[in-house]
Amino acid sequence: MGFVSRHLLDHLSASGECYEITGLSRNPGQLAGDYKNIKINIVSADLNDREKLLAILDKVRPQQVIHLASDSSVAHSWQAPAESFQNNTNIFLNVVESVRKLAFPCRILSIGSSEEYGVVDAKHIPISEEAPFNPVSPYAVARVSQELLSKIYADGYGMDIVITRSFNHIGPGQKDNFVISSFARQIVEIKKGSGSILQVGNIDVIRDFLDVRDVVKAYSILLEKGEKGEVYNICSGKGYSLKEVLDKMMVIAGVDVGYHVNPQLIRPADNPVIIGSNEKIRVECGWQPGISIEQSLKDIIDYWSNELK
Amino acid sequence: MGFVSRHLLDHLSASGECYEITGLSRNPGQLAGDYKNIKINIVSADLNDREKLLAILDKVRPQQVIHLASDSSVAHSWQAPAESFQNNTNIFLNVVESVRKLAFPCRILSIGSSEEYGVVDAKHIPISEEAPFNPVSPYAVARVSQELLSKIYADGYGMDIVITRSFNHIGPGQKDNFVISSFARQIVEIKKGSGSILQVGNIDVIRDFLDVRDVVKAYSILLEKGEKGEVYNICSGKGYSLKEVLDKMMVIAGVDVGYHVNPQLIRPADNPVIIGSNEKIRVECGWQPGISIEQSLKDIIDYWSNELK
Repeated sequence: MGFVSRHLLDHLSASGECYEITGLSRNPGQLAGDYKNIKINIVSADLNDREKLLAILDKVRPQQVIHLASDSSVAHSWQAPAESFQNNTNIFLNVVESVRKLAFPCRILSIGSSEEYGVVDAKHIPISEEAPFNPVSPYAVARVSQELLSKIYADGYGMDIVITRSFNHIGPGQKDNFVISSFARQIVEIKKGSGSILQVGNIDVIRDFLDVRDVVKAYSILLEKGEKGEVYNICSGKGYSLKEVLDKMMVIAGVDVGYHVNPQLIRPADNPVIIGSNEKIRVECGWQPGISIEQSLKDIIDYWSNELK
Repeated sequence: MGFVSRHLLDHLSASGECYEITGLSRNPGQLAGDYKNIKINIVSADLNDREKLLAILDKVRPQQVIHLASDSSVAHSWQAPAESFQNNTNIFLNVVESVRKLAFPCRILSIGSSEEYGVVDAKHIPISEEAPFNPVSPYAVARVSQELLSKIYADGYGMDIVITRSFNHIGPGQKDNFVISSFARQIVEIKKGSGSILQVGNIDVIRDFLDVRDVVKAYSILLEKGEKGEVYNICSGKGYSLKEVLDKMMVIAGVDVGYHVNPQLIRPADNPVIIGSNEKIRVECGWQPGISIEQSLKDIIDYWSNELK
């Protein structure tokens, strides 16, 4: 189970409504929570295995599919661009093609990324869904391709697909190859006495961070209220530089340490400022973010304090 | 050997300069021409076979690569969208990744399509390279993905890639799953007494047709004079509806027959008008088209008359 899917289960469970869920994962692992109102069946499956996926979907015939699987590391996409691109687009195509071939009624949530916007003109900030694409990493190109394919499947074949452009997620449980989780882990390690200086990349970039618990709330709302073939930004609407976030985390953790800019953490190309507009999903679907960045950062530091006990 | 690559060989041969060419093909077949100034080596290879491709490129280390292989039928992409998309993007990625890994100096010509523009606002006609993407078929999305990946490899990894958006090619030797070749074949068959009525799809769409011999001349010029990371339209700058082309062909062939609109030939979505601007390649590289549409159509009809003897 991935970072987002675990939080989605928590969200659905807390809603109190009854759900029957089939989860597909290459590494099913253990389910942490106790989901009284959810009948859950975790199946070990690789989404690259087209025939197995088709067989599972044929058997289950779900009313809704949330496609959360992706190789979502921008950094990794620079190291292995072809692999990252192919993995991301292939698994998405395997899902939508299976549903198209089986031709049963099913709403699919296609998860895209703010990385699709890429380097954005200042006039487009905050970025609305009308801003043009300008992807500057292999990962970003894969997400643009997925979105364009989603549109083809929705408009050309009439499939019921709702599309997101999700901005940077943060929250407890995220792997430390993502920047905020990496900072939190390093800060906790330094506090505990192992390590003395933070390794960072370019901390001048400004990003729109949204707590994963607000992200999954948005996904749940879009499955009910999103419009077929439409694209929705999922973001906080606020921007912080990585430096500002780092400073906030040090205050929360009660430490004050220096940092070292590691050239290996600098990307070949990057977006200086990404701040989104969440007006569309707020106005059309009634979603709004509920968790402050300070609360998120505290929960992330608490998570790593607990993990590294 | 494909339609475009055979014409490219003819063009290079006619130039009189000396070339050493390695051609990769799944179905090498027979070489038709007599290429005195070209040392040519045709290798049987499937571009999906990443390891074999890497080994060939490592051995040959070409100064220039023209990537002409693609599943270029829009109609087929609607029948098998995932297969068409994956085939197109995978073979392109295998080529550029191999060159990136081997890190030898090499200019790559990445062939894109006017289909990337898709449904275009009237204000964008004739379409310049600044017009936005709006792909409306699985094939078109694959070509947009290829172009965006080309940009990443050029800008992010510094590779020497020149990009085209090539408009509809026509010419002798094209397979009859392309519309003009299909019309020509049907007209010739009717003239010979087999068949009495033409089968057509939507003949109101307007397209910018360019003779394949002008296309390959443009490719050759772009390899010499194109700018790294830049995109060039390759088109005639003129638009004709399929109906107008059909009428011209009937006059040339000296027949006058009716036609039947076959619903199976109508696409789920299509672009009503595509007319390109070739100003950039004309001004920056000195290319211009040299073959009139009437000459092209005559040569295509002659080709089928000869084929169906």
